Amino acid sequence: MKIVIVGGVAGGMSAATRLRRLIEDAAIIVLERGPHVSFANCGLPYYIGGTIEDQSKLLVQTPEKLHQRFNLDVRTNSEVLAIDRKEKKVRINHQGKDYEETYDRLILSTGARPMRPPIKGIEQAENLFTLRDVPDAAAIVSFIENNDVQKASIIGAGFIGIEMAENLAARGIQVTVIERDRQILPPLDPEMAAPIEAVIKENGVMIRKGKTVTAFEEHGTKLVLDDGSRQAADLVLLSVGVVPESGLAEHAGLELGERKAILVNDQLETSDSAIYAIGDAIAVKQLVSGALTVIPLASPANRQGRMVADRIAGLTRTYKGTLGTSIVKAFDLAAAVTGLNEKQLRHAGTAYQAIHTSPPDHASYYPGSRQMTLKLLFDPENGRLFGAQAVGEKGVDKTIDVLSTAIKAGMTVSDLTELELAYAPPFNSAKAPVNLIGYAAENLLDHAVASIQWNEVDHLVKEGAMLVDVRTENEYTHGHIPQSVNLPLDSLRARLGELPDDRLLIVTCQVGLRGYLAARILTQKGFQVSNLDGGYKLYKTVFPDKVVL
Amino acid sequence: MKIVIVGGVAGGMSAATRLRRLIEDAAIIVLERGPHVSFANCGLPYYIGGTIEDQSKLLVQTPEKLHQRFNLDVRTNSEVLAIDRKEKKVRINHQGKDYEETYDRLILSTGARPMRPPIKGIEQAENLFTLRDVPDAAAIVSFIENNDVQKASIIGAGFIGIEMAENLAARGIQVTVIERDRQILPPLDPEMAAPIEAVIKENGVMIRKGKTVTAFEEHGTKLVLDDGSRQAADLVLLSVGVVPESGLAEHAGLELGERKAILVNDQLETSDSAIYAIGDAIAVKQLVSGALTVIPLASPANRQGRMVADRIAGLTRTYKGTLGTSIVKAFDLAAAVTGLNEKQLRHAGTAYQAIHTSPPDHASYYPGSRQMTLKLLFDPENGRLFGAQAVGEKGVDKTIDVLSTAIKAGMTVSDLTELELAYAPPFNSAKAPVNLIGYAAENLLDHAVASIQWNEVDHLVKEGAMLVDVRTENEYTHGHIPQSVNLPLDSLRARLGELPDDRLLIVTCQVGLRGYLAARILTQKGFQVSNLDGGYKLYKTVFPDKVVL
Ligand SMILES: Cc1cc2nc3c(=O)[nH]c(=O)nc-3n(C[C@H](O)[C@H](O)[C@H](O)COP(=O)(O)OP(=O)(O)OC[C@H]3O[C@@H](n4cnc5c(N)ncnc54)[C@H](O)[C@@H]3O)c2cc1C
Ligand SMILES: Cc1cc2nc3c(=O)[nH]c(=O)nc-3n(C[C@H](O)[C@H](O)[C@H](O)COP(=O)(O)OP(=O)(O)OC[C@H]3O[C@@H](n4cnc5c(N)ncnc54)[C@H](O)[C@@H]3O)c2cc1C
Ligand SMILES: CC(C)(COP(=O)(O)OP(=O)(O)OC[C@H]1O[C@@H](n2cnc3c(N)ncnc32)[C@H](O)[C@@H]1OP(=O)(O)O)[C@@H](O)C(=O)NCCC(=O)NCCS
Ligand SMILES: CC(C)(COP(=O)(O)OP(=O)(O)OC[C@H]1O[C@@H](n2cnc3c(N)ncnc32)[C@H](O)[C@@H]1OP(=O)(O)O)[C@@H](O)C(=O)NCCC(=O)NCCS
Repeated sequence: MKIVIVGGVAGGMSAATRLRRLIEDAAIIVLERGPHVSFANCGLPYYIGGTIEDQSKLLVQTPEKLHQRFNLDVRTNSEVLAIDRKEKKVRINHQGKDYEETYDRLILSTGARPMRPPIKGIEQAENLFTLRDVPDAAAIVSFIENNDVQKASIIGAGFIGIEMAENLAARGIQVTVIERDRQILPPLDPEMAAPIEAVIKENGVMIRKGKTVTAFEEHGTKLVLDDGSRQAADLVLLSVGVVPESGLAEHAGLELGERKAILVNDQLETSDSAIYAIGDAIAVKQLVSGALTVIPLASPANRQGRMVADRIAGLTRTYKGTLGTSIVKAFDLAAAVTGLNEKQLRHAGTAYQAIHTSPPDHASYYPGSRQMTLKLLFDPENGRLFGAQAVGEKGVDKTIDVLSTAIKAGMTVSDLTELELAYAPPFNSAKAPVNLIGYAAENLLDHAVASIQWNEVDHLVKEGAMLVDVRTENEYTHGHIPQSVNLPLDSLRARLGELPDDRLLIVTCQVGLRGYLAARILTQKGFQVSNLDGGYKLYKTVFPDKVVL
Repeated sequence: MKIVIVGGVAGGMSAATRLRRLIEDAAIIVLERGPHVSFANCGLPYYIGGTIEDQSKLLVQTPEKLHQRFNLDVRTNSEVLAIDRKEKKVRINHQGKDYEETYDRLILSTGARPMRPPIKGIEQAENLFTLRDVPDAAAIVSFIENNDVQKASIIGAGFIGIEMAENLAARGIQVTVIERDRQILPPLDPEMAAPIEAVIKENGVMIRKGKTVTAFEEHGTKLVLDDGSRQAADLVLLSVGVVPESGLAEHAGLELGERKAILVNDQLETSDSAIYAIGDAIAVKQLVSGALTVIPLASPANRQGRMVADRIAGLTRTYKGTLGTSIVKAFDLAAAVTGLNEKQLRHAGTAYQAIHTSPPDHASYYPGSRQMTLKLLFDPENGRLFGAQAVGEKGVDKTIDVLSTAIKAGMTVSDLTELELAYAPPFNSAKAPVNLIGYAAENLLDHAVASIQWNEVDHLVKEGAMLVDVRTENEYTHGHIPQSVNLPLDSLRARLGELPDDRLLIVTCQVGLRGYLAARILTQKGFQVSNLDGGYKLYKTVFPDKVVL
């Protein structure tokens, strides 16, 4: 058996090594266009920032070591130009010369390439970079070291843009991030991205949201924005997303889907059963919605690489889909997401319920605990989990990993209440964040309480709802939502008479917990009441300028 | 509705607060024998050690606050002496006076008490303590502060014993832990407890395993051990486990099970349907084995407390069982366990397969990663997960929480390979520890490789197996298992001729990964081969004195 693999990084090399383990006698050729294989794409920003000091650390494997250990025929600087499906061979260019290789099975793990929108002047920009591989990173480092780079602009506030903002700032560069959307980090919902935006600004990075770059002037050193303003930049990083690298597949007549991603079945076979495709180049089924989409992440790419090898070796495997679990560090904070976000649910017209909590990462009586913000999205009918997001200093990765596992298992919010997570004071609370949000969600499902969201307050108050802040007088004085009245929870039972019973009461507190307690009392006393989910804290996070201080 | 709750801490108070939320108009009385309710039992060792500085931090709630917020009638220093089931009333002693309260529903959350074996001289010991509540902790602190405590002995190396060893050492006391078993931390298997033992010793705490205290002499300042030796101690902590506090239930004629734990059905009802019992006092179904057992942990107690309230309020709930997920900090290490351990599986006669891996907590090319040791136990027929254990500096809690969730969901090792966990270099690897151990376990299940365990090596080598160490010559020289020969993996393919094909080859490396690679090559070339699971590292952890250095 002769297997040819195009692309020698996350997906491709995972397939190659696994194939060797499964079929000692197969001929396995890995063809990689670039100068390196098996490099840590995800480490590139940290190499640029200096956290990863040594470039060689980024090279998880080398062609020599892969030959020695896995008897792989790894060829770098070898671009596959075309696939001849009838003859089952590929044409390869190596150092200007073309040659051919036949295959029994062909695996495409060609990845994705940074988008390069046709902005006016982009071709003349001499300080413009994208980041995908080690040469890209080396070019950025070298440009910084050889030029007097004081100011950098990053176009696009996705995960890579945000990581690069932190890492360029770490080099003492003054960074401005320009984002077309009205929020940064599009995989998150806006209220969950807001704390990341705040921490980035606190660290001296400027963020300009809702702005598009319409032109590059002066060889890229001046960016023209759609509001007419200009932004000076010694260096520009373009990080506005990636597109599947599917030209090779397209020319070979393989079926492509939306965004030109390669279509595969649940065996990762393309429309040609001798050709498999994996990784960033393919369309995958979003595990929660079932919809075809593109989810360019390393974990799925690695997993698909291993699975395709299993398939070729005759093992039974099925690729069920991708959840899209991801995480990003931004200075002292982390933000993570799994499953569907609220924007996606709304867009798909799916009925959903959202809930936010603010648990500490571990028992607050043990030193060092930090509050995170946690969001859960679920089916209001049966409690099935749709997605989750978390942002905070500690425990974000753990919480999202547990929730990702729960979603994968098809769990409901009630199942979350029953999870038994490792508790000792330094590590968690007896009621873990995941349990607590399960409880709170179950209460919504059981109609024990009704809630409204941060973006509904202003409208409902205008419509006549009364906003009751049940925190202490002291907390209220230090900042509250406009038009709210203060009635502390601990005197609520005694002061019920002060509340009207003919209009909607919106109760609110700091994070939603006391509001819930108040709502339970009021509901049972016959009032019409909703709890402001996430409380004052979440409202203030999104609308720092609206609150009364 | 009038509900009386006996015991006002984890289970009892969780029931009380939830009941109030569900039934605003119920009469809810909480009777607590001790002077405090709602205190953080789990924080007590850290209060003694000084990490938690302020005793008031241990009091999560007070009777006053519980009255104010939840309209609860909380009575401390109120011991329930007897239950009159026919008349539905309890007799209470408060400050020397008895009185009665009737109930519609009674909840017993009486907890457990430290075992006090009838060791000779125990009654005369004046420096002997157990640790269950705030007065216990205060008494220990006061004894230390008022006496010249230089040496302490801890009898029993369970979770509390180990936490106390660290915390007494933090006060500058020279600590000796005496454990009857041949390992510390019985919930773990011995090879997983070994690194904890090592770190404890490194921090100056002495451990004497396989020893029983047979007598206290000189008012407890001298412990006599079963080997005849004597151990001087200014202070002695007895932490040899707990027994359910079920005397009240027993006298009321409620059904008890093994270890006198109160028997309840899956609605948490005792044999009297007006009386519920929860927490450390009850027998629960171990979720994996289905067997009735006692699992005295805070998370289940809290959960049962909430559930019993739901039940009383008429909501449909079923208690499915307890996994027994737990974690302990020991200096810089953490050790955690979920589900069944190997000892329990062996004892139950359940066929199982074990596997150990040593993944880094996050991508090793990003600074600060630490290797942990991870153990998985699963059904060798279908891959169903039985249990997991982890020990290490970082990521232990996260890894066990994901595995606990997976076990709860009834997942198999193959499901672990498909989990999609949040990956960015500071947080995880593209193949997360949980994925990797799933892969490795799947290979065993698929018979792609056979493995042997650390405790089988010596025997098999004696029987004629050849032990082949496939690490580099340099690694081998720095330490190897006796009788192993060195044949580095990267030259294995070229040197196959040197290996005998008529006897079992045991391949070994540092942690098991390269051994696996070697095993795959050798198996496909017709050799009879097993991989030493966990490799040299695990062997050395358990047998530091056996290895050739
Ligand atoms: C800066 C950066 C940070 C990232 N951070 C994260 C993160 O934190 N977490 C995460 O999950 N993901 C992250 N990713 C994404 C992750 O790296 C990708 O999802 C993953 O590498 C995809 O694997 P792949 O095999 O599909 O493609 P790649 O790893 O990109 O490999 C594709 C390879 O194919 C080669 N190739 C393409 N066409 C040809 C051809 N015709 N002939 C020969 N070779 C060809 C390319 O040169 C390329 O090397 C990051 C990516 C980048 C760029
Ligand atoms: C030092 C220590 C550390 C711990 N660390 C951890 C940890 O890290 N993680 C973990 O999961 N668990 C830990 N635990 C265990 C955890 O605290 C218990 O599992 C949990 O508290 C059990 O809850 P419960 O309601 O059943 O009993 P408890 O919380 O013990 O409450 C029972 C209460 O009932 C009262 N009572 C008993 N009989 C009567 C009566 N007749 N009348 C009136 N009142 C009565 C008692 O005074 C007691 O206050 C630890 C326990 C201790 C002691
Ligand atoms: C590293 C790379 C070449 C893959 O190599 P690999 O050998 O498949 O992967 P690993 O080194 O993680 O080893 C995993 C194998 O070891 C086995 N293994 C791991 N630990 C083991 C242990 N203790 N005992 C036994 N087996 C073990 C696993 O089962 C797995 O084997 P399998 O797939 O046959 O089941 C490829 O992933 C790569 O190029 N990565 C870098 C690029 C990248 O991922 N970029 C994106 C992220 S930055
Ligand atoms: C603290 C104690 C009194 C329980 O109090 P509690 O009010 O039930 O628990 P919490 O303060 O965690 O609040 C949980 C409630 O708030 C709700 N909640 C939490 N955050 C919320 C939010 N942001 N929005 C809405 N609701 C929220 C939860 O749904 C839950 O309510 P529910 O049970 O009605 O669903 C009890 O657990 C106790 O005494 N603990 C200390 C003793 C102990 O546990 N010892 C062992 C460990 S050291």
